[in-house]
Amino acid sequence: MSNFHFIPGGVTAAQGFTANGVCAGVKAATSAAIDKTKKADAPAVIPNGKRDLALIACDKPCTAAAIFTKNLVKSDTIYVTQKHLENGTAQAVIVNSGNANACNPDGYEKAEAMAKLAADALGIDENNVLVASTGVIGQPLPLAPIESGVNALKDILSKEGGTNAAEAIMTTDTVKKEWAVQTVIGGKTVTIGGIAKGSGMIHINMGTTLSFVTTDAAISAGMLKAALMEAADVSYNMVSVDGDTSTNDTLAILASGYAGNAEITEKNEDYDIFLEALTAAFQAVAKKLAADGEGATKLLICKVSGAKDDKAAKTVAKSVICSSLVKAAMFGADANCGRILCAVGYSGADVDDVKKIDVAYKSAAGEILVCQNGCGLAFDEAKAEQILLENEIEIIITLGDGAAAAEAYGCDLTYDYVKINGDYRT
Amino acid sequence: MSNFHFIPGGVTAAQGFTANGVCAGVKAATSAAIDKTKKADAPAVIPNGKRDLALIACDKPCTAAAIFTKNLVKSDTIYVTQKHLENGTAQAVIVNSGNANACNPDGYEKAEAMAKLAADALGIDENNVLVASTGVIGQPLPLAPIESGVNALKDILSKEGGTNAAEAIMTTDTVKKEWAVQTVIGGKTVTIGGIAKGSGMIHINMGTTLSFVTTDAAISAGMLKAALMEAADVSYNMVSVDGDTSTNDTLAILASGYAGNAEITEKNEDYDIFLEALTAAFQAVAKKLAADGEGATKLLICKVSGAKDDKAAKTVAKSVICSSLVKAAMFGADANCGRILCAVGYSGADVDDVKKIDVAYKSAAGEILVCQNGCGLAFDEAKAEQILLENEIEIIITLGDGAAAAEAYGCDLTYDYVKINGDYRT
Repeated sequence: MSNFHFIPGGVTAAQGFTANGVCAGVKAATSAAIDKTKKADAPAVIPNGKRDLALIACDKPCTAAAIFTKNLVKSDTIYVTQKHLENGTAQAVIVNSGNANACNPDGYEKAEAMAKLAADALGIDENNVLVASTGVIGQPLPLAPIESGVNALKDILSKEGGTNAAEAIMTTDTVKKEWAVQTVIGGKTVTIGGIAKGSGMIHINMGTTLSFVTTDAAISAGMLKAALMEAADVSYNMVSVDGDTSTNDTLAILASGYAGNAEITEKNEDYDIFLEALTAAFQAVAKKLAADGEGATKLLICKVSGAKDDKAAKTVAKSVICSSLVKAAMFGADANCGRILCAVGYSGADVDDVKKIDVAYKSAAGEILVCQNGCGLAFDEAKAEQILLENEIEIIITLGDGAAAAEAYGCDLTYDYVKINGDYRT
Repeated sequence: MSNFHFIPGGVTAAQGFTANGVCAGVKAATSAAIDKTKKADAPAVIPNGKRDLALIACDKPCTAAAIFTKNLVKSDTIYVTQKHLENGTAQAVIVNSGNANACNPDGYEKAEAMAKLAADALGIDENNVLVASTGVIGQPLPLAPIESGVNALKDILSKEGGTNAAEAIMTTDTVKKEWAVQTVIGGKTVTIGGIAKGSGMIHINMGTTLSFVTTDAAISAGMLKAALMEAADVSYNMVSVDGDTSTNDTLAILASGYAGNAEITEKNEDYDIFLEALTAAFQAVAKKLAADGEGATKLLICKVSGAKDDKAAKTVAKSVICSSLVKAAMFGADANCGRILCAVGYSGADVDDVKKIDVAYKSAAGEILVCQNGCGLAFDEAKAEQILLENEIEIIITLGDGAAAAEAYGCDLTYDYVKINGDYRT
């Protein structure tokens, strides 16, 4: 039986944390710099605009950890956040959408300036402020809206503001992602909550998209990092929307310790309980990120079993979920088993015998076997179509090589993906 | 100065070869088996239908070689062709479109039966017949249309029929691909010609799509194979349409020796002249395959220079050309340098310093630098758009690490790609 349960709330669910998000006009200022025909708004908080600046804060310094994109080209926000995490503590996170602050000559200075603005507003050490940005790459980050935004935010930080923070980090996301779970560690109730943004440029082999997690567990920075990596490995690292990895991916966690449990400083039973809840939450987020992939109409879950080892299972699941042809076929509700077999075959995974592969599709409308022993089956096309018209599809692959299993999360490839990315910047 | 020049013609341009293509009804029979509401045509050649069966023949056995898909899941046609090439000779090629004969329990027997039908019709050894198929995977191959098609083809093989053969191997291709080059080896005129099909499922790390090449050069099977691999490495292996590799990819070459040159049996000057012509032809085909990628409106050529070594140059070029985000941005004529830098950064290539990367776009409408020293530049958006509205775009990346260079070929990602692949089978 699982020890945790989901509860309402997000990044402010855990004790000690407040947050909020406002429309500071970062995106408008960036677009105006690209397209001179557009007029920049004066740097002031816009009451009804799309929120683009979030501030998350704790009332005391927390233990903290983060993992980042593996892209060689990194936003300078990542270097600043890495530096501020060297001592394993943090107290606040400042995040903007609308501009990635990547590939800019003055990116580092501006990321540091963002941290200082937040630190000054909160009256805390700037080395305890983590920084993240998301949006267009290669455009100078406008600091004026961030300054006015931070000044507005410092007065409205609250428990209720977490949901505004979730909105503020969205780019092409269509729904905000926030979550919270509770579990019990050593008799104490521990809460973990978070917000995430995703949509495009989501791919395996990355830290994550932007995700900020808070908890009131007492846990060392080292154990936070370990749990973050373990949980991400079977969640964020198994999601792909388009095979592109971003320059800005950041998954950060802050732990206030207010739950009062004995501090977790090693991989003991308490660690396992914490990890179980964190993993379940991250997997739920992974599905949300995939389902809200740019232009997506369907969540695809590829479940591989019977693999020789974990690596083979993961490699196959990722290859299928990343195939443009599989993704387009799922959009069209076309039960093409050839696409699936193909993607298994070129995955590079250690698969003993392709003549042992079975493939089935499953959804709320039923399940249908379309391939057995590596060969296409004659199947009921009408039933298959009905299954594939649902908005959550499982692609079930059985390899017959061993006992390892893995799941990967993705989405269909649609007209709207092309439309969204055909003109992203302005 | 180059020794070769392009001439009109295709797979029958070289001395000794004839070919033709007919509509045998393979696709119609396959679709009818999937969708019972469709009625299969009686197995007879359909005068005005889309050609789907090609036969290429020489009037004597040739030296021959082929390279194949690296997908673990292979069409049985590949195993039969590999077996028939064991002795390094071949005299004919039979190819159908409309059904890939892959992932079928009786695939091997049917591929052998295809070879035998062609051998019997031509009165040659069935071990000298190569077999290839392309089309839907996991559906039984209907042999009846192939039998009636072969019988019709044997009487109409001709020099002029090469272009019908080019048509017959097309699937979602919108234009047929045929080419011929001539060069001079040891004072003798040598002709090389070929046909190819591409469109979807084209990706790096593969043999190729379906391509059949004939030449009247005198060259050993071993040197043919060596030249095929060297030429493919900088052409077919540098094309990507959608990142998927097919189960059926085959690039085969037959050499009749009628040109009368001293047989090429080692990597000497004659080999180099032959390779030069073959490489130029394959690179021209690679561009045609990319430009006619499924749904493509634009040919993208990514030119990387200043790389540390060949591997780094190729890895970067391939990563950029494969990025869904780059491809969608090019469709939308959006001069987003962030997409390019991102794809360089996650390519896994050995790049010393991302702060040395320059990026420019070039087309018939001009050239524009959009990124210098790893940072986005302010540039003339109107001019950039004009450049990107052309149908052949060069993405020029300079790394500043060394002297190695590479080119990769791809296309934009469009609404039509999604449409074509949303319902491929019927």
